Amino acid sequence: MRVKYGEMKALFTDILTRHGFSPEKAEKVAGIFTDNSCDGVYSHGLNRFPRFLSYVKKGHVDPAAEPALEESFGAFERWNGNMGVGCTNAVAGMEAAMALARRHGIGCVAMGHTNHWMRGGSYGLQAARAGFAGICWTNANPSMPPWGAKTPKVGNNPLVMAFPYKDVCFLIDGALSQYSNGALDGYRMAGARLPFPGGYDKDGKLTTDPGAILETGRALPIGFWKGSGYSLLLDAIGAALSRGSTVPEIGRASGEIGVTQVFIAFDLAKVSGEEYVAAMAERLIADFKTAEPAESGVPFHYPGEKSAATRKENLASGIPVNEEIWNDVLKMKG
Amino acid sequence: MRVKYGEMKALFTDILTRHGFSPEKAEKVAGIFTDNSCDGVYSHGLNRFPRFLSYVKKGHVDPAAEPALEESFGAFERWNGNMGVGCTNAVAGMEAAMALARRHGIGCVAMGHTNHWMRGGSYGLQAARAGFAGICWTNANPSMPPWGAKTPKVGNNPLVMAFPYKDVCFLIDGALSQYSNGALDGYRMAGARLPFPGGYDKDGKLTTDPGAILETGRALPIGFWKGSGYSLLLDAIGAALSRGSTVPEIGRASGEIGVTQVFIAFDLAKVSGEEYVAAMAERLIADFKTAEPAESGVPFHYPGEKSAATRKENLASGIPVNEEIWNDVLKMKG
Repeated sequence: MRVKYGEMKALFTDILTRHGFSPEKAEKVAGIFTDNSCDGVYSHGLNRFPRFLSYVKKGHVDPAAEPALEESFGAFERWNGNMGVGCTNAVAGMEAAMALARRHGIGCVAMGHTNHWMRGGSYGLQAARAGFAGICWTNANPSMPPWGAKTPKVGNNPLVMAFPYKDVCFLIDGALSQYSNGALDGYRMAGARLPFPGGYDKDGKLTTDPGAILETGRALPIGFWKGSGYSLLLDAIGAALSRGSTVPEIGRASGEIGVTQVFIAFDLAKVSGEEYVAAMAERLIADFKTAEPAESGVPFHYPGEKSAATRKENLASGIPVNEEIWNDVLKMKG
Repeated sequence: MRVKYGEMKALFTDILTRHGFSPEKAEKVAGIFTDNSCDGVYSHGLNRFPRFLSYVKKGHVDPAAEPALEESFGAFERWNGNMGVGCTNAVAGMEAAMALARRHGIGCVAMGHTNHWMRGGSYGLQAARAGFAGICWTNANPSMPPWGAKTPKVGNNPLVMAFPYKDVCFLIDGALSQYSNGALDGYRMAGARLPFPGGYDKDGKLTTDPGAILETGRALPIGFWKGSGYSLLLDAIGAALSRGSTVPEIGRASGEIGVTQVFIAFDLAKVSGEEYVAAMAERLIADFKTAEPAESGVPFHYPGEKSAATRKENLASGIPVNEEIWNDVLKMKG
């Protein structure tokens, strides 16, 4: 079943306005959730909407709160998310980082006391579509053990990088676990095994069973010891800059709330010029595309290429939905 | 066989002064190579010294060149490495990023036309020991295929993050391939297999044979498609900011020369205060250390902990050396 972009966005907007969101904010948030599904990140679009709304109902996410600048240090600003809506807070964070970069070449915003940003790639794309290079990350619940240990102590702390390229973008948006919780959920719902081992089962064995990993909460870091190391560092840097919560502090909260995020923007047009940057990206991809496919006739993609193609297809033909979830959300219209 | 820190540094200094290095620069470079071996990164200390010197002799690395500021944009500066010595250029890059961060909270230097920085962790530690959080990366020769392809097109582009912690530091210094070329070399020299598959053999099969991977030049990215994606993004961002070479452009040069590096520093003392940062790091590690070891009685470590312990041991007992390489370098004394 496919649903038109406008129809999905209108439904989300309608539901959100019934749950304390101003019309303007409801439309923004609805747009982000719809974009996520439209780009093929179903785990953080429609499929995540019911859980997001439950967090609003529980009071974990305050739809009326706005993020606020706490302290400014030139090219770096500390913001407080005030436990508001993660995705609109993140848009404000990247917007402020871009404004700083326009003045200083680079800009950075660290935001504590914010909430889950859903698809981190959204904020990378926000920067790249405006001609900036963007780097951002978030911390999260403990979901991976330190390398050499069993107990989940570090987050899968997604790290996002984006870069302008023609009418699409280079985009990498990855959890530091081999599979994000959203991806594990997706495979589990589809009754599928993971293509590669993604974590440990209750006997401490590496497994491709997504349900077994969600049960133990022991995801495998990318690059084994490397992903676990990057995770601790991103957590420390974010928490120090924002004065917000660390991963273990989030783990002690009632749900994955009050997280810490960092947004870095580089004004490429200012420092190197649009034409220079566009020509460099063109050369880079021209070379990239001369690689021989691993399987003859099976195309390979630069990061961000597939989601851009999915977006185009879903805008034209409607967004594929899990019918059960779609019907559940339809009922929320009241 | 173990060699005293001072003896190794004196030997390097002596040799370098015979190859066009000023006494001051010879001592700096000798210190960096000795530190790398002292910290246990033998692949980029003594073991790498002969190859480094061969690059100097071939004229790929100019011992007299100094890096220079090209253009300043507030908190961001573009530098030109002038094909000088990679490791002293990198020290200058991080130093300049830290100076910018002192004024603006965050500082960033992008440097093109520089050379291999040996151990990237050196420049992370440089920042963290001064109380800064540091992030830096370099690009490199093409050594990994895009995900879904066979031909090496992206670099293993090491990404470094460091953070101050007591008299040590949190430090992650990882190639985006599961094993760096230096690590593959180390396993090969020791006649050992890799603990995990690290790339493809000539039949396109994943292998733990380091020699087979060095032969095909097809290393496995960390996180499969993720590492390959981060690599392209780091290359694009670095090359755009520095106006330096991209990975495919380095691949067409005669050796891994003229690379592009980015240095980002955050002045933690300025933006959050030393005490706040130290207490946060202390809480983070206190929790981290409560994890249950994967194997009972086998300790696990935070990133940077082991190299700090190795340093302490090697300062006290001497630095372990491969006798053959040590004797080869002794002969260079002339």
